Amino acid sequence: MLNLYFAPGSCALASLIALEESGLPYEARRLNLVNGEQRSTEYLAVNPKGRVPALVTDRGVVTENVAILAYVAQIAPAARLAPLDDPFDFARMQAFNSYLASTVHVNHAHKGRGYRWTDDAAAIEAMKAKVPQTMGESFALIEEKMLEGPWVMGEQYTVADGYLFTLTSWLSGDGVDQTQFEKVSAHHARMLERPAVQRAIAAGKA
Amino acid sequence: MLNLYFAPGSCALASLIALEESGLPYEARRLNLVNGEQRSTEYLAVNPKGRVPALVTDRGVVTENVAILAYVAQIAPAARLAPLDDPFDFARMQAFNSYLASTVHVNHAHKGRGYRWTDDAAAIEAMKAKVPQTMGESFALIEEKMLEGPWVMGEQYTVADGYLFTLTSWLSGDGVDQTQFEKVSAHHARMLERPAVQRAIAAGKA
Ligand SMILES: N[C@@H](CCC(=O)N[C@@H](CS)C(=O)NCC(=O)O)C(=O)O
Ligand SMILES: N[C@@H](CCC(=O)N[C@@H](CS)C(=O)NCC(=O)O)C(=O)O
Repeated sequence: MLNLYFAPGSCALASLIALEESGLPYEARRLNLVNGEQRSTEYLAVNPKGRVPALVTDRGVVTENVAILAYVAQIAPAARLAPLDDPFDFARMQAFNSYLASTVHVNHAHKGRGYRWTDDAAAIEAMKAKVPQTMGESFALIEEKMLEGPWVMGEQYTVADGYLFTLTSWLSGDGVDQTQFEKVSAHHARMLERPAVQRAIAAGKA
Repeated sequence: MLNLYFAPGSCALASLIALEESGLPYEARRLNLVNGEQRSTEYLAVNPKGRVPALVTDRGVVTENVAILAYVAQIAPAARLAPLDDPFDFARMQAFNSYLASTVHVNHAHKGRGYRWTDDAAAIEAMKAKVPQTMGESFALIEEKMLEGPWVMGEQYTVADGYLFTLTSWLSGDGVDQTQFEKVSAHHARMLERPAVQRAIAAGKA
């Protein structure tokens, strides 16, 4: 049995979407990040990093979206959620996911979590001010160079699509006008039509 | 033929080590980040993100250490650089690599690349001040919860080892006393004994 720890509005939506698309049975376990439940003793025993997502399996815990997404695709091969038989295409998918995790998500985190990198209140405010620019630049690159269309990897829908969808949802809150990115906006609308995405969004709010 | 774009002292050393361990033929192509070669028109055509590493293959370019490391392991299965036949162990290795890319490397980047996230000179200085703490906390977690020993994943040497080695090398420059982390220090010394690591270090300086 799989249990996914998530929080509403968080990057864990990417993993929730992958699980819904996979058809695997799982349970979604909600944490309240505002109350600091991610730092409770119980949860730190699951994920000592104090972050979501964390996927609890019969063999142990997998953290990090990049890892969970590839894992779900690999254990549910019939759902065809990644180019599992082609190392080059798999690497391109992973490069996309890793860019989201290591650059785009990090840009976004400078809005609400600047205290991770400085204790200086003025510096935390200064970081917030640049988020519209850094997120805008990241999405310009995605629009122009990375998103093949109709899906991230082209004709094959993959776990990268749910991850992009999740970060696209953050744009308006980050002060970026999503409509300037035509392909990204069309991708977002296309995702909203998928039943699995609708179920994941519902699970992610529940 | 494989060509790896790298820069001395950069995170690309992780990918250089993987290639040396793999036994695959490749060429290392050096960029000078101080001169801004990563932003030249020629290089942006290879990697529009303007970063290293980038691995040029016959089929196209793979960026991001997380993706390159798994790719090298997959195309050189005889070198046994990843638990390729076990999705759970593979996911744990990927979780380790993704933590390095999305959290530890990002902590480090706040020392020399704060301008990515703010234009405010005082805020850039304020970010630098916290790097010893954030890098120290990340390595405390690696020491206590993540590094199994003797290698990252336990008995099997994997591409995660070269990645950890690379980021461990940054600690003293980041104001962190590496000797406080016994397992990490022993791992670093163990890595230095590997011929492939010695060759990658030499290639990374050449
Ligand atoms: N690199 C991790 C990042 C996970 C992460 O930062 N999650 C956020 C939610 S989007 C979190 O748990 N934040 C809680 C906190 O910082 O206390 C991943 O991609 O899974
Ligand atoms: N997430 C990327 C990060 C790559 C990265 O930031 N590389 C640095 C060197 S350690 C770089 O190219 N910096 C050049 C610059 O920022 O201009 C990865 O893990 O490959």
